[in-house]
Amino acid sequence: MNVEKVVSRSNKSNLNEDVCNINKKRLLSTIDTSAGCGTLPNGGLCRLALSEEDQKIRDLFKEWMKESHLDVRIDDVGNMYGRRPGKNPDALPVVIGSHLDTQRIGGKYDGILGVMGALEVVRTLNDYDIETERPVEIVNFTNEEGARFLPSMLGSGVAANVIPTEEILKIKDKDQIRFVDELEKIGYKGSARNRLHEMYCYLELHIEQGPVLETNDQSIGAVTGIQGISVLEVCVKGRTSHAGTTPMENRKDAMRTAGKMIQDIYQSAESVPGLLITIGQIQALPNVTNSVAEQVIFSIDIRHPDDAMRMMFTHELKEKLSTKALIDQVDIHMKDLMDVKAEKFSEDIVSEIQRAADKFGYRSMKLISGAGHDAKYMNQLAPSGMIFIPSIGGVSHCEEEFSTDEDIAKGVQVLLELVLRFANHKEELKR
Amino acid sequence: MNVEKVVSRSNKSNLNEDVCNINKKRLLSTIDTSAGCGTLPNGGLCRLALSEEDQKIRDLFKEWMKESHLDVRIDDVGNMYGRRPGKNPDALPVVIGSHLDTQRIGGKYDGILGVMGALEVVRTLNDYDIETERPVEIVNFTNEEGARFLPSMLGSGVAANVIPTEEILKIKDKDQIRFVDELEKIGYKGSARNRLHEMYCYLELHIEQGPVLETNDQSIGAVTGIQGISVLEVCVKGRTSHAGTTPMENRKDAMRTAGKMIQDIYQSAESVPGLLITIGQIQALPNVTNSVAEQVIFSIDIRHPDDAMRMMFTHELKEKLSTKALIDQVDIHMKDLMDVKAEKFSEDIVSEIQRAADKFGYRSMKLISGAGHDAKYMNQLAPSGMIFIPSIGGVSHCEEEFSTDEDIAKGVQVLLELVLRFANHKEELKR
Repeated sequence: MNVEKVVSRSNKSNLNEDVCNINKKRLLSTIDTSAGCGTLPNGGLCRLALSEEDQKIRDLFKEWMKESHLDVRIDDVGNMYGRRPGKNPDALPVVIGSHLDTQRIGGKYDGILGVMGALEVVRTLNDYDIETERPVEIVNFTNEEGARFLPSMLGSGVAANVIPTEEILKIKDKDQIRFVDELEKIGYKGSARNRLHEMYCYLELHIEQGPVLETNDQSIGAVTGIQGISVLEVCVKGRTSHAGTTPMENRKDAMRTAGKMIQDIYQSAESVPGLLITIGQIQALPNVTNSVAEQVIFSIDIRHPDDAMRMMFTHELKEKLSTKALIDQVDIHMKDLMDVKAEKFSEDIVSEIQRAADKFGYRSMKLISGAGHDAKYMNQLAPSGMIFIPSIGGVSHCEEEFSTDEDIAKGVQVLLELVLRFANHKEELKR
Repeated sequence: MNVEKVVSRSNKSNLNEDVCNINKKRLLSTIDTSAGCGTLPNGGLCRLALSEEDQKIRDLFKEWMKESHLDVRIDDVGNMYGRRPGKNPDALPVVIGSHLDTQRIGGKYDGILGVMGALEVVRTLNDYDIETERPVEIVNFTNEEGARFLPSMLGSGVAANVIPTEEILKIKDKDQIRFVDELEKIGYKGSARNRLHEMYCYLELHIEQGPVLETNDQSIGAVTGIQGISVLEVCVKGRTSHAGTTPMENRKDAMRTAGKMIQDIYQSAESVPGLLITIGQIQALPNVTNSVAEQVIFSIDIRHPDDAMRMMFTHELKEKLSTKALIDQVDIHMKDLMDVKAEKFSEDIVSEIQRAADKFGYRSMKLISGAGHDAKYMNQLAPSGMIFIPSIGGVSHCEEEFSTDEDIAKGVQVLLELVLRFANHKEELKR
């Protein structure tokens, strides 16, 4: 189905107006077509990175980029770029995009909105025959979710030279399939020379994945930064024994101690405003009903906008857990799985998002992102920014993930406005 | 290696003595040969029911039974019987045995001692050319551990008509392999008419799997019964959300509530003497570090010698957990996975075990079994009893499981003594 051709005419009639309008019908239809690649029973998506479904949406996206006369490039980790030339070929490009992969049980907007929104922006520029000073590049980053291959934000991490490519190519999914083999299999192993190089700025439109915008009745979020994250893995090691034959006083029950710890971790967090704490993963060994647990391993995800607060809390928590283990005479091992500093986005971009929202009469507010995004790594390369739209019920990473058509259109309209502004902007942006 | 023939001569010289002595060297050598089927790196065994390793030990055991002139039968769930005739063919038999399967990571004594001990008893009777009044039957029950197929104590449960056969044949292991297919594959699908029918009594020698005998410096345990068990599955259901984007006050974190529950369950148990409580199994959904847990499912294993105490505790615990869930506004579902009453063994057998121990100067004490055993189901068919020997360090269901050669020999000697007594006994045994 070629959605583009059907609806692109309607915009032509707006050519005389002062504002350039995106084509909402075409945009929603594109998102709908994307939702056909990896559809789950309840309307969500399972489109793991480099899967057959990922290949399917990549092929469609490549075709759409070509139809929009973009110069398509694939880099060595499968990141896809489409470049629309500017009047000045030497000017650094404005880059816009996100990712097309999803969680194992994910929604149809997370990441996808940013890529299809970027496509809609260049389609609209084409509709209006607008020539910008700077080139505009749209991008689909590989494996942002980390649901199949770890680490997450893999493609943007490599593009920003934060993650070394050689190691990445060798990583395996849980079925021991190598990243590089899957990349070649689906036909998206490109060349390192196609990588994203210097750019003027990076803009990413995304769903909020939290309840703040909806709760505050706002349509547009001007994201000020991404909060820092610590992820710990705690392994409590006791001694296994038979559930029926070992008197309580002879046990070293790892679960007993882990239970006290979990209860205490959540309680400690209550006294620190703004702190987010999540124990999402747990495993017991041997994990049978009739044996005392020898080991209980669990994760602690700790986030706070202020790095100093987060680090102090994490440090104190580690001490507290060590003491608890000592009292219960069990061993404890703690491993830092992640320790990522907070990222601050360009103030110029934040103000421009709110200015654009005001222009169209959309309600907007500043907020911080609790989740990591490709923009996090792009911020290392050039001033970056993110536009959020509301997630209904604050839910994401599930089939129920939903944003209204109106908010989707508003988000893409603001993205277009920023592109029009920055692609003709000459001064350097404030970090 | 035919251990039997090598060593059976040594006993012949003892024929004139008052007591019949088991052949310790032959017994230990048989247990050693068994330990060669499914050996793990640290001396333990992995011999899951109906696996190739199980087939190997079954074939050996069958051969040994035939060499001892036993009449071998296999029933419809693979239970193996070897009958030694008595003077009176109409008299009900004395049945002795246990099981040859192990846990996934198990020891070389659990169950095996009872079967190889029974074999040693009939070998000794043969050595001394002793003819008993009643027949003596030795037995290896299928899938006692429940490590591959659930329920545990499957073979004895079917033999006692407690577990219906038709359902059992259809059950599957975790790889979706059917019990009946594996049974046929290894050649142990026999006939229902070969089942164990009426018997005079059932005797099972077993390692204690707990620390009580060792702690009290005793060699022989006269088991008075098996304590009752309740196993609950608790499912706490909240709502998943993103670990970075959902304010704490907007969450319904199942792990948070589960942590409080686990802590509280262990604490509640402290005030009830004799109560054993174990949370051995836990699972979180979706079980990823960066998502709030939607569900946490865990097991509670509750045991007490007194059924009334156990049931009262379980009832109160359920009420307490429901209240906690209500306060935290999460859902809770509780399922009774097991509710098995305490089993009381025959007083006559308990006294006879202690009398036999006294005769040989072995230190003995009465104790209750914390674990379930095949004797539990056999007790439904006829007066039953169990002899325990010490487990060093109280450990079992692991490679470190160990009992001394001396205690092993003492246990089998006591078993032989009981067989000599009961196989010539005419009065009914007290339950």
